[in-house]
Amino acid sequence: MGLPFILLNFKTYMQGTGQNALKIAKACKVVSEESGIKIAVAPQLPDIYRVASEVELQVFSQHMDGIGEGSFTGHIFGGCIKEAGAFGTLINHSERRLTLADIEASMRAARNFGLRTVICTNNIPTTVAAATLGPDYVAIEPPELIGSGISVSKVDPEVVSGSVEAVAKINNEVKVLCGAGISKGDDLRAALDLGSEGVLLASGIVKAKDPKTALEDLISLV
Amino acid sequence: MGLPFILLNFKTYMQGTGQNALKIAKACKVVSEESGIKIAVAPQLPDIYRVASEVELQVFSQHMDGIGEGSFTGHIFGGCIKEAGAFGTLINHSERRLTLADIEASMRAARNFGLRTVICTNNIPTTVAAATLGPDYVAIEPPELIGSGISVSKVDPEVVSGSVEAVAKINNEVKVLCGAGISKGDDLRAALDLGSEGVLLASGIVKAKDPKTALEDLISLV
Amino acid sequence: MGLPFILLNFKTYMQGTGQNALKIAKACKVVSEESGIKIAVAPQLPDIYRVASEVELQVFSQHMDGIGEGSFTGHIFGGCIKEAGAFGTLINHSERRLTLADIEASMRAARNFGLRTVICTNNIPTTVAAATLGPDYVAIEPPELIGSGISVSKVDPEVVSGSVEAVAKINNEVKVLCGAGISKGDDLRAALDLGSEGVLLASGIVKAKDPKTALEDLISLV
Amino acid sequence: MGLPFILLNFKTYMQGTGQNALKIAKACKVVSEESGIKIAVAPQLPDIYRVASEVELQVFSQHMDGIGEGSFTGHIFGGCIKEAGAFGTLINHSERRLTLADIEASMRAARNFGLRTVICTNNIPTTVAAATLGPDYVAIEPPELIGSGISVSKVDPEVVSGSVEAVAKINNEVKVLCGAGISKGDDLRAALDLGSEGVLLASGIVKAKDPKTALEDLISLV
Repeated sequence: MGLPFILLNFKTYMQGTGQNALKIAKACKVVSEESGIKIAVAPQLPDIYRVASEVELQVFSQHMDGIGEGSFTGHIFGGCIKEAGAFGTLINHSERRLTLADIEASMRAARNFGLRTVICTNNIPTTVAAATLGPDYVAIEPPELIGSGISVSKVDPEVVSGSVEAVAKINNEVKVLCGAGISKGDDLRAALDLGSEGVLLASGIVKAKDPKTALEDLISLV
Repeated sequence: MGLPFILLNFKTYMQGTGQNALKIAKACKVVSEESGIKIAVAPQLPDIYRVASEVELQVFSQHMDGIGEGSFTGHIFGGCIKEAGAFGTLINHSERRLTLADIEASMRAARNFGLRTVICTNNIPTTVAAATLGPDYVAIEPPELIGSGISVSKVDPEVVSGSVEAVAKINNEVKVLCGAGISKGDDLRAALDLGSEGVLLASGIVKAKDPKTALEDLISLV
Repeated sequence: MGLPFILLNFKTYMQGTGQNALKIAKACKVVSEESGIKIAVAPQLPDIYRVASEVELQVFSQHMDGIGEGSFTGHIFGGCIKEAGAFGTLINHSERRLTLADIEASMRAARNFGLRTVICTNNIPTTVAAATLGPDYVAIEPPELIGSGISVSKVDPEVVSGSVEAVAKINNEVKVLCGAGISKGDDLRAALDLGSEGVLLASGIVKAKDPKTALEDLISLV
Repeated sequence: MGLPFILLNFKTYMQGTGQNALKIAKACKVVSEESGIKIAVAPQLPDIYRVASEVELQVFSQHMDGIGEGSFTGHIFGGCIKEAGAFGTLINHSERRLTLADIEASMRAARNFGLRTVICTNNIPTTVAAATLGPDYVAIEPPELIGSGISVSKVDPEVVSGSVEAVAKINNEVKVLCGAGISKGDDLRAALDLGSEGVLLASGIVKAKDPKTALEDLISLV
């Protein structure tokens, strides 16, 4: 088991918007270089280009629609986020759920444009269903814990270990991230010990007084 | 009656994505300067920053959610599009319909961030309802004509003149645009003769072999 | 000002499902006859036929889609609820929001089938927008108070009186109901004193130990 | 391989609404008894009670939400359709798509109420994902063929046989139906020859001049 993958979702926090998005991305870059741990960021759609242009990090979109080019005003087109510099995309985040048909269409569109994929899920059965679609990652996040400050890896360890096991049976190339309530070093440590390959997290870092210090704490027990 | 307002929606056309978005925006800029007619553009979300940074034009977002800062992964936050350089936003485009509650919330959020608003509607009753919310513009677009190449101002003139009349009774500060099938000089001429203050259009220009020539034709009878 | 109109929404409460729906509807019937006050009920979709067949009351659907006959599997078709015995329908309840385009389409479909309409709204601006569409009623319900037990007519009287005033200017044939937190006699009294013509309510009656007694209390100050 | 399962979706066709729903259900009953082939019906929500009360057939709901009892106005609650007489439910029909999270929640709710489940899907990958959730049936229907009169079992046989194979690997207790364009005897014959256990169909029977004769033709080659 190698180093973990950390994916930081900026949501629509003011602390993660525009110039602030650049600042946090730069802190991620510094901590990633110092530690050797891969940290990727998911800024808001209008910030992808700026972050990807100015900070050498993997940038993920927070959402992508299962569409091609065409008449889809206001939708998120893979070809556009790719050209803006995205490396990958979240799909089906708990705050932006998609139909099963659209998750699958979004997966195909992401592959067409060479984008990596992280499908978010809410429990073991949906994690298994998502894993059959062959994303790079599934990120299991019990919705009731998102933003709670209560770490899924501590209060609901079975959902993490159970997802890891179940996904391994379906498609062992799909990696499992866990999310919801992750912010401290021992949250990440517990997540890795349960077999996940990393974490998807947001407020614990983005809304921290000092995101760089918060990141350093997060990875302190790896 | 002064000069018309032309708002060009790039949808998710490949011809309006990334570098291509910049090219079309620059063509709009040239034609606008040569003619004195105000032309604004609505590129995809990830292109707003780039277009607004490199081309001196009014840039509209194709969509904006009725949210504030917070936990709204994958949603479009007014504070972010504003900082990216947006001047305004489309709301409720026929390809990205919102609930009435969300249209109203999006209007309030746009005002908070000093963004101009264009609410899209599909017929006279919805135009009147939208006008009560006080947007800068309502853009009436019968959905069955969008992308048809058949101009609303020619085949359904009553929906345009009826909207203009009805909106004037509700709130005479709200201006009416019309859309759907507009691409030629006589489509725009007809739209203005029916009392609208301009047009919202897309494929006729963005997918034209030469968008600059197409724009010049569009405004040739003003 | 005549007697108020009381519309009781059964939501998906077990106490308002199936046989229980019949029981509550019968209690409404008794209280309505004893008091002379019009009480209507909105049971779940599968219960409309049974309630309308067995209890002589106005039965409202909880929702109706803006569709006609055709390929709309799983949608709620006006022609079907009409034939099942519905007298009218809620449209755009806070738990089942519709796009503006669909609210308007649903209004037209309801008129085609001779169904009365109650459009639910969340604040004064959306109430005004809804009133332009000409429903029989708008029901203003601040979402944060729904199911709270805190009556809108007491804690947010301005939203009720403001809605009544604003609607009167737009279309004085549209009547205003208010909802959210209404359950006691003085809640209804306050609602009427603020100019509304009645109330839309749910848990306070449906989940009461004795719905009939709760209804009698509700109307005790009329 | 035993006799096929035929599930007839009444959609919101006028020919399948109210009294007409009863008529078609009765025709299904007669043909089912004469032939020994199991035919189930999926009438509109408000018609479930009436059809289930008057015709001895398996009645499926066209849709069910992934909710429990509570504040879900306008939603379809498993406890209510069960009490109305439903035997099972369609989930995620192409005209009523659900998020993956809601499909899974709907599956759990259906199990809680002892309802059989048919998850509708649009291609092989979504069929596989759905099969992991353990429904009684998956019904694969390429959306572009629905209502086309062009039978999936003839023009896209690989999607049927591929679904059958792929589902068998995931969970061999899940049965595969196929839909889209099925109406004639040789459509059903081809569907069975491809390994499906039956068909989900609609317009070919419901909108036929004589539904009973159309049903007899449908099963003529079994």
